[in-house]
Amino acid sequence: MKYKLTYFNITGLAESIRYIFSYAGVEFEDDRIEYDLEKWRAKKDRPLFGTLPLLEVDGKLTHQSVAIARFVGKKAKLVGKDDWENLEIDAIVDTQVDFRLKMGAFFQEQDPEKKAKAKEEFLKETLPFYMSRFEKIVEENGGYFAAGKLTWADFFFVGMLGAFNGIVGVDIIDGYHNLQELKNKVENLPGVTEWIEKRPKTQF
Amino acid sequence: MKYKLTYFNITGLAESIRYIFSYAGVEFEDDRIEYDLEKWRAKKDRPLFGTLPLLEVDGKLTHQSVAIARFVGKKAKLVGKDDWENLEIDAIVDTQVDFRLKMGAFFQEQDPEKKAKAKEEFLKETLPFYMSRFEKIVEENGGYFAAGKLTWADFFFVGMLGAFNGIVGVDIIDGYHNLQELKNKVENLPGVTEWIEKRPKTQF
Repeated sequence: MKYKLTYFNITGLAESIRYIFSYAGVEFEDDRIEYDLEKWRAKKDRPLFGTLPLLEVDGKLTHQSVAIARFVGKKAKLVGKDDWENLEIDAIVDTQVDFRLKMGAFFQEQDPEKKAKAKEEFLKETLPFYMSRFEKIVEENGGYFAAGKLTWADFFFVGMLGAFNGIVGVDIIDGYHNLQELKNKVENLPGVTEWIEKRPKTQF
Repeated sequence: MKYKLTYFNITGLAESIRYIFSYAGVEFEDDRIEYDLEKWRAKKDRPLFGTLPLLEVDGKLTHQSVAIARFVGKKAKLVGKDDWENLEIDAIVDTQVDFRLKMGAFFQEQDPEKKAKAKEEFLKETLPFYMSRFEKIVEENGGYFAAGKLTWADFFFVGMLGAFNGIVGVDIIDGYHNLQELKNKVENLPGVTEWIEKRPKTQF
């Protein structure tokens, strides 16, 4: 199979997928376009629903970062052993997305005063609310997000950390040692380490 | 297996799941709590990440409406025949969620002037953007959202329509005859029809 992953020239929503491809040892075309949201949105011929990332598999095009990560996670055997374990994985990934959307809300605020207030609220309430729960889940699951073993839910979280930290301006897992250990574990996996070394260096 | 689905006493994010259970002929406890967001958020002992719906399976608790719908969809055999078809299903469901989140943004706006403006923008741009693409996809897929056959993606969309229309105040699929036909098809399925007749009558 031939895979082409198209995204902005940043880590963002594509890095988790790039991690999973690299871990699986599956070659993919790492197609990157200039990170300019205005220019992208002004493009008349954006495919599907106009969002990135896009994945092309043998010429067939699809989209949606979570759906793509799940698909590539299956190829990498980073899934649960039954429907319940896969539900666990899916539930925690969608919760990671909930967290990201709350972060995005203050990132996209244009009014500087409102933005500062939203950021303060995010740092004081939203961030510890999610991180303390994530920390507890990983602690209780033998060091992983779901199913008591390494799954694509771990890649999904760790792959987004670079962009998270770039947006928030702090290390969001600082003080949560189970999450820090998980990050180290994933980034030291064969394939992932090599990817991190060779990937293009970007803003975030 | 014993299933208990907990949600507010509205259709909202749970109705798609209730449709799938009913179609599958799987009994579930339809646990409903008063629809009062303030009261719910003030509760100190909300489980997991504090959101609804919740699903209990043989005493084990989980959450996240999309993950639950996928899980129950598997029980009902409303899935694709391979990983690619399941990716198609997952991608379109997450796009339905994107649409819902954009709708939620104006619904939750408190300032009446801003709300009116956001609603106008939603009706003029967001709604036709998504509905025209959904309509085309369903048309090209033999009357379904994905995989050329009935899947849980169809239930996910149709199950949310009642709440969508209640929030927006118009029939959002008016004029999109493929989407209307799909709605009729799903709501006339054995199990679903009986569910719609017997379900508690609620605000939306």
